Amino acid sequence: MQKGFKLAMCQLQVNIDKRKNIENAFRHIDLAAQGGAELVILPEMFTCPYNIKLFDEYSENETDGETIAALSKKAKELGIYIFGGSIPEKENDKTYNSCFVFSRKGEVIGKHRKMHLFDINIKDRIEFKESDVLTAGNEVTVIQTDLCKIGVAICYDIRFPELSRKMTLMGAELLVLPAAFNMTTGPAHWELSIRTRALDNQFFVAAVSTARDENASYVAYGNSMIADPWGSIFARAGVSEEIIFAEISKEKIDRIRNELPLLKHRREDLY
Amino acid sequence: MQKGFKLAMCQLQVNIDKRKNIENAFRHIDLAAQGGAELVILPEMFTCPYNIKLFDEYSENETDGETIAALSKKAKELGIYIFGGSIPEKENDKTYNSCFVFSRKGEVIGKHRKMHLFDINIKDRIEFKESDVLTAGNEVTVIQTDLCKIGVAICYDIRFPELSRKMTLMGAELLVLPAAFNMTTGPAHWELSIRTRALDNQFFVAAVSTARDENASYVAYGNSMIADPWGSIFARAGVSEEIIFAEISKEKIDRIRNELPLLKHRREDLY
Repeated sequence: MQKGFKLAMCQLQVNIDKRKNIENAFRHIDLAAQGGAELVILPEMFTCPYNIKLFDEYSENETDGETIAALSKKAKELGIYIFGGSIPEKENDKTYNSCFVFSRKGEVIGKHRKMHLFDINIKDRIEFKESDVLTAGNEVTVIQTDLCKIGVAICYDIRFPELSRKMTLMGAELLVLPAAFNMTTGPAHWELSIRTRALDNQFFVAAVSTARDENASYVAYGNSMIADPWGSIFARAGVSEEIIFAEISKEKIDRIRNELPLLKHRREDLY
Repeated sequence: MQKGFKLAMCQLQVNIDKRKNIENAFRHIDLAAQGGAELVILPEMFTCPYNIKLFDEYSENETDGETIAALSKKAKELGIYIFGGSIPEKENDKTYNSCFVFSRKGEVIGKHRKMHLFDINIKDRIEFKESDVLTAGNEVTVIQTDLCKIGVAICYDIRFPELSRKMTLMGAELLVLPAAFNMTTGPAHWELSIRTRALDNQFFVAAVSTARDENASYVAYGNSMIADPWGSIFARAGVSEEIIFAEISKEKIDRIRNELPLLKHRREDLY
């Protein structure tokens, strides 16, 4: 990692018009770059309401998808990294929940397909079953950039400690998490999960939610936030559209890993 | 697991007199049993001030240790399980930080030796190096009882997600954690770690600290607490001597594992 850099997390409102969602993302990415961000993160399913009945209609192929082409152009124009939240991606009749990552030159330098599908059924609260329409990805995604080494996970992926640990052992210094927790799991587990993965792995976790829309069929929790390697939240959004900026510091990782050497104390001989 | 049972967590003050520490533990264990607890947990190093210079002097052999004999007798007398916090254990010139577990008949049915030694050096805050005098254990400890299957870890062991996950996969429904976090790591990480291990593994975590003594060389955080499989704290102590009781319910584990099937969604093919 270089000494440090600024990133921006765009908590976006999503509506039914895909083109408007892309334009709205563009406005926020422009503002983020004007604010000095070298890396911009969008939320999960930012082009499409989070509703399994719509994923197919809004899906894109990597080769000719309009969102992918648009984000590529925008990254190149601004000379920044864009972590494109996620979109429904179609390949060979299968649909994935995928995060495309763009370099400063607009190249796709990584793609994470959500590995853990969100199938949940909490009595009288929430029922959701991604696996009815989505296929899970099979790859752990860690990307080398000129800023630092970055792991990518999507929403429910955060719940599995094995995944973030694996990314850490692959060298990740920052975990980027496009997400959309809801009004049941959000208050209960969102901050807890973000803080813990950061603390256990002594890296930064930048978790970006869609904004809250009380009229949507799936109401997102909002509260995008970033945790440092000590497990402390040092920037967080409310529930509406918002950009939050944060400084990623190499010194902070090194200092905390030295003072509290968790990663060195792992008993690799026993687990 | 049977349907449910009551446990008690004894947050004890420790002083320099070993015999008085044992007597004090006895008083609390009696009260816990009177309160209906079938399982009683004591804190880490409850016979000995938490100071590496004293561990050797206070250590005991399993075969003739006075604390071990006393707890065995007490468990048998009351017909309850006792998780004997921890004591310095001596074997072949090596000293371990060990939790002895006693059945209703007073038998030693398990012993956990702290697997991760606490070596920490936070500038101007706290320095502690267990590895100067202690040897780490090499065994994951999960014990079958007639109440439920119980994992045992000691203090710093909680920081390693691999360990609690391994216990879960071995069938643990409750993690017992004798501990003594301090005034730096306690406020920052104690509750977070307890809640997260419970949530990620969808089991109960009962974490028992020594009481706070502002005059001790190592000031314990106190705040013994228990988290349920949803990651919620449902009973907690303050900082002084105290017994807290909690109901462990099989139904709660089953319901949460069914509604939010994290353990079923693990990608064992990928990690």
